Amino acid sequence: MIELHAFATPNSVKVVIALEELRFAYELSPVNVRKGEQKQETFVDLNPNGKVPVLVDDLDGERFVLTESAAILVYLAEKSGKLLPKSGTARARVFEQLFFHASALSPAFGNAGFFKRSSPQPQAIAEARFISEAERILCLLDAKLTDQAFAAGDDFTIADIAHFGWLWRRQFPGLTLDETPTLSRWYDDVAARPAVQRAIARVEALVPAA
Amino acid sequence: MIELHAFATPNSVKVVIALEELRFAYELSPVNVRKGEQKQETFVDLNPNGKVPVLVDDLDGERFVLTESAAILVYLAEKSGKLLPKSGTARARVFEQLFFHASALSPAFGNAGFFKRSSPQPQAIAEARFISEAERILCLLDAKLTDQAFAAGDDFTIADIAHFGWLWRRQFPGLTLDETPTLSRWYDDVAARPAVQRAIARVEALVPAA
Repeated sequence: MIELHAFATPNSVKVVIALEELRFAYELSPVNVRKGEQKQETFVDLNPNGKVPVLVDDLDGERFVLTESAAILVYLAEKSGKLLPKSGTARARVFEQLFFHASALSPAFGNAGFFKRSSPQPQAIAEARFISEAERILCLLDAKLTDQAFAAGDDFTIADIAHFGWLWRRQFPGLTLDETPTLSRWYDDVAARPAVQRAIARVEALVPAA
Repeated sequence: MIELHAFATPNSVKVVIALEELRFAYELSPVNVRKGEQKQETFVDLNPNGKVPVLVDDLDGERFVLTESAAILVYLAEKSGKLLPKSGTARARVFEQLFFHASALSPAFGNAGFFKRSSPQPQAIAEARFISEAERILCLLDAKLTDQAFAAGDDFTIADIAHFGWLWRRQFPGLTLDETPTLSRWYDDVAARPAVQRAIARVEALVPAA
């Protein structure tokens, strides 16, 4: 059985979506990042980087601990043989989008949210830098989706799951999809997938009632 | 013949190291990012994201254009069957480090350098945020390399190449390896590899003489 340490966060939901799409059996172990549980000793023993999600797989009785949400997506896709083409240029396109997500979209959204909401003092240049970078990235994705149905080509892949995770939490950096109608349609299509709906319900259920 | 659009940048050198390690035939096409050539129309036609490196491979007469340095590393490793284990947990460890590089190390170094050197006005909180994050990441890598010879395990892989690219440019964010002696030894070992030396010489030769 796969065990996933997770919370209702952009990076956690990606992995839960993949688990649901691929029909893996799994259980969720909540890590309340709003209370800083990801920095506590028991969790840091699991992931020294102090971040969710963390996957623990049982490989013939050996516990295999894996961090980094996109690396977990690749692991699950290769384990199942689905959501990632096995070879060729279609496969390379998925990695291109996964690394565009990890190195561009994800830090832009995360830092935009931090400087908009959490910085102890205003940092106007920093806030504008990350908001404008996030908006630029949304426009790049919008243009890409004008030519193709999904992020990495004609098929739904783990690249769509990665992008969806942060777009689902776009209110954190205060972004909208109002100016990117093609991306907005793609978002609605992905959000309507039954596996995605199940995944969102499961991570939202990890948040304790106030 | 592989064509690589590149300059003497952290992300470009990674791909040139992989090309040299794997003994691919290639030619470099310089894109002078100090003059903003990566934002010019001819280049943006190649990569709408306006970033180097960009690889153009000839696949039976079809031009295949690929962006994102880490995606190019995966592409070259899978094309050659080297520098990335073909299966199992050792393979997952390489992706874990590649995504740790892309989502954590790379944006921390890039943003630390920006706020230290290029911000139009000082942004003290932003600068401290990214410097301390970059230092935290160096300590995580130092601890990892205490237990294993290379970033993703016992063997040299594309994960080492990815980390090396930014560590080679650590003077941009003003970082040193003085407090991370194990990482420093790893750096010296990687820097001493003949393919790495050839790659550095080739990207440095792309910079016009002043």
